[in-house]
Amino acid sequence: MPKAPIKGIIEIEFPNEEIAKVVYESVLLEHESVPYRRSRIKFEREGNKIKIKFIAKDNSALRGTLNSYLRWIKIAMDVSDL
Amino acid sequence: MPKAPIKGIIEIEFPNEEIAKVVYESVLLEHESVPYRRSRIKFEREGNKIKIKFIAKDNSALRGTLNSYLRWIKIAMDVSDL
Repeated sequence: MPKAPIKGIIEIEFPNEEIAKVVYESVLLEHESVPYRRSRIKFEREGNKIKIKFIAKDNSALRGTLNSYLRWIKIAMDVSDL
Repeated sequence: MPKAPIKGIIEIEFPNEEIAKVVYESVLLEHESVPYRRSRIKFEREGNKIKIKFIAKDNSALRGTLNSYLRWIKIAMDVSDL
Protein backbone atom coordinates (compact mmCIF):
# COMPACT_ATOMS: atom_id res chain seq x y z
CA MET A 1 0.00 0.00 0.00
CA PRO A 2 1.52 3.36 -0.94
CA LYS A 3 1.75 5.75 1.96
CA ALA A 4 -0.59 8.72 1.77
CA PRO A 5 1.02 12.15 2.03
CA ILE A 6 0.75 14.07 5.27
CA LYS A 7 -0.52 17.63 5.12
CA GLY A 8 -0.42 20.36 7.66
CA ILE A 9 0.09 23.92 8.67
CA ILE A 10 2.21 25.75 11.23
CA GLU A 11 0.98 29.19 12.23
CA ILE A 12 3.14 31.38 14.42
CA GLU A 13 1.68 34.58 15.81
CA PHE A 14 4.14 37.34 16.64
CA PRO A 15 3.55 40.24 19.03
CA ASN A 16 3.19 42.62 16.08
CA GLU A 17 3.37 42.87 12.29
CA GLU A 18 6.80 44.53 12.32
CA ILE A 19 8.40 41.52 14.04
CA ALA A 20 6.55 39.10 11.78
CA LYS A 21 7.85 40.99 8.72
CA VAL A 22 11.49 40.93 9.88
CA VAL A 23 11.37 37.21 10.65
CA TYR A 24 9.43 36.42 7.47
CA GLU A 25 11.83 38.28 5.17
CA SER A 26 14.87 36.53 6.65
CA VAL A 27 13.38 33.06 6.44
CA LEU A 28 12.02 33.76 2.94
CA LEU A 29 15.61 33.96 1.65
CA GLU A 30 16.26 30.45 2.97
CA HIS A 31 12.90 29.21 1.72
CA GLU A 32 13.65 30.41 -1.82
CA SER A 33 17.19 29.05 -1.87
CA VAL A 34 16.45 25.44 -0.89
CA PRO A 35 14.97 23.00 -3.35
CA TYR A 36 12.76 20.45 -1.60
CA ARG A 37 12.10 17.20 -3.33
CA ARG A 38 10.28 15.23 -0.67
CA SER A 39 8.12 17.97 0.86
CA ARG A 40 6.13 20.78 -0.72
CA ILE A 41 6.07 23.97 1.29
CA LYS A 42 4.22 27.26 1.05
CA PHE A 43 5.68 29.99 3.21
CA GLU A 44 3.40 32.99 3.79
CA ARG A 45 2.85 35.98 6.04
CA GLU A 46 -0.54 37.43 6.98
CA GLY A 47 -0.32 40.44 9.27
CA ASN A 48 1.48 39.36 12.43
CA LYS A 49 1.27 35.65 11.49
CA ILE A 50 3.72 33.48 9.60
CA LYS A 51 2.20 30.39 7.98
CA ILE A 52 4.08 27.32 6.82
CA LYS A 53 1.84 25.02 4.78
CA PHE A 54 3.30 21.63 3.98
CA ILE A 55 2.67 18.37 2.18
CA ALA A 56 5.20 15.61 2.84
CA LYS A 57 5.47 12.19 1.25
CA ASP A 58 6.78 10.57 4.40
CA ASN A 59 7.31 11.47 7.99
CA SER A 60 11.12 11.67 7.84
CA ALA A 61 10.87 14.28 5.12
CA LEU A 62 8.22 16.07 7.15
CA ARG A 63 10.24 16.33 10.33
CA GLY A 64 13.42 17.32 8.52
CA THR A 65 11.66 20.06 6.65
CA LEU A 66 9.71 21.50 9.58
CA ASN A 67 12.85 21.43 11.66
CA SER A 68 14.66 23.57 9.10
CA TYR A 69 11.89 26.16 9.15
CA LEU A 70 11.75 26.26 12.94
CA ARG A 71 15.54 26.61 13.04
CA TRP A 72 15.51 29.46 10.50
CA ILE A 73 12.77 31.23 12.43
CA LYS A 74 14.73 30.87 15.65
CA ILE A 75 17.92 32.22 14.02
CA ALA A 76 16.02 35.16 12.51
CA MET A 77 14.60 35.96 15.95
CA ASP A 78 17.96 35.60 17.70
CA VAL A 79 19.69 37.85 15.17
CA SER A 80 16.94 40.45 15.44
CA ASP A 81 17.05 40.09 19.24
CA LEU A 82 13.30 39.48 19.35
CA MET B 1 11.12 45.98 27.32
CA PRO B 2 9.76 42.53 28.30
CA LYS B 3 9.48 40.17 25.38
CA ALA B 4 5.94 39.35 24.34
CA PRO B 5 5.02 35.67 24.23
CA ILE B 6 4.78 33.91 20.87
CA LYS B 7 1.62 31.99 20.11
CA GLY B 8 0.89 29.49 17.43
CA ILE B 9 -0.62 26.28 16.22
CA ILE B 10 0.63 23.24 14.35
CA GLU B 11 -2.01 21.20 12.54
CA ILE B 12 -1.09 17.88 10.99
CA GLU B 13 -3.62 16.14 8.78
CA PHE B 14 -3.32 12.37 8.53
CA PRO B 15 -4.70 10.18 5.72
CA ASN B 16 -7.49 8.95 8.03
CA GLU B 17 -8.83 9.14 11.59
CA GLU B 18 -7.45 5.73 12.56
CA ILE B 19 -3.86 6.82 11.91
CA ALA B 20 -4.42 10.14 13.65
CA LYS B 21 -5.77 8.27 16.72
CA VAL B 22 -2.78 5.90 16.93
CA VAL B 23 -0.28 8.75 16.65
CA TYR B 24 -2.26 10.98 19.02
CA GLU B 25 -2.56 8.35 21.76
CA SER B 26 1.19 7.62 21.69
CA VAL B 27 2.22 11.26 21.81
CA LEU B 28 -0.38 12.02 24.48
CA LEU B 29 1.54 9.80 26.92
CA GLU B 30 4.65 11.94 26.38
CA HIS B 31 2.63 15.14 26.50
CA GLU B 32 1.16 14.21 29.88
CA SER B 33 4.46 13.09 31.37
CA VAL B 34 6.52 16.20 30.66
CA PRO B 35 6.12 19.33 32.72
CA TYR B 36 6.81 22.42 30.66
CA ARG B 37 7.75 25.55 32.44
CA ARG B 38 8.63 27.88 29.60
CA SER B 39 5.96 26.91 27.07
CA ARG B 40 2.25 26.18 27.46
CA ILE B 41 0.94 23.50 25.16
CA LYS B 42 -2.49 22.13 24.30
CA PHE B 43 -2.41 18.83 22.47
CA GLU B 44 -5.64 17.86 20.72
CA ARG B 45 -7.08 15.60 18.06
CA GLU B 46 -10.03 16.47 15.83
CA GLY B 47 -10.95 13.71 13.40
CA ASN B 48 -7.90 13.02 11.24
CA LYS B 49 -6.09 16.12 12.51
CA ILE B 50 -3.69 16.54 15.41
CA LYS B 51 -3.40 20.07 16.76
CA ILE B 52 -0.59 21.43 18.90
CA LYS B 53 -1.43 24.86 20.30
CA PHE B 54 1.42 26.67 21.98
CA ILE B 55 2.36 29.81 23.86
CA ALA B 56 6.06 30.30 24.50
CA LYS B 57 7.81 32.96 26.51
CA ASP B 58 10.87 33.01 24.29
CA ASN B 59 11.93 31.54 21.02
CA SER B 60 14.43 29.04 22.47
CA ALA B 61 11.67 27.51 24.56
CA LEU B 62 9.42 27.50 21.51
CA ARG B 63 11.80 25.65 19.26
CA GLY B 64 12.77 23.14 21.93
CA THR B 65 9.16 22.36 22.68
CA LEU B 66 7.96 22.07 19.09
CA ASN B 67 10.94 19.92 18.30
CA SER B 68 9.96 17.46 21.01
CA TYR B 69 6.43 17.16 19.64
CA LEU B 70 7.61 16.69 16.07
CA ARG B 71 10.08 14.05 17.29
CA TRP B 72 7.40 12.19 19.25
CA ILE B 73 5.05 12.28 16.26
CA LYS B 74 7.79 10.92 14.01
CA ILE B 75 8.61 8.11 16.48
CA ALA B 76 4.91 7.21 16.83
CA MET B 77 4.64 7.02 13.04
CA ASP B 78 7.84 4.99 12.66
CA VAL B 79 6.75 2.50 15.33
CA SER B 80 3.30 2.15 13.75
CA ASP B 81 4.94 1.89 10.32
CA LEU B 82 2.74 4.69 8.98
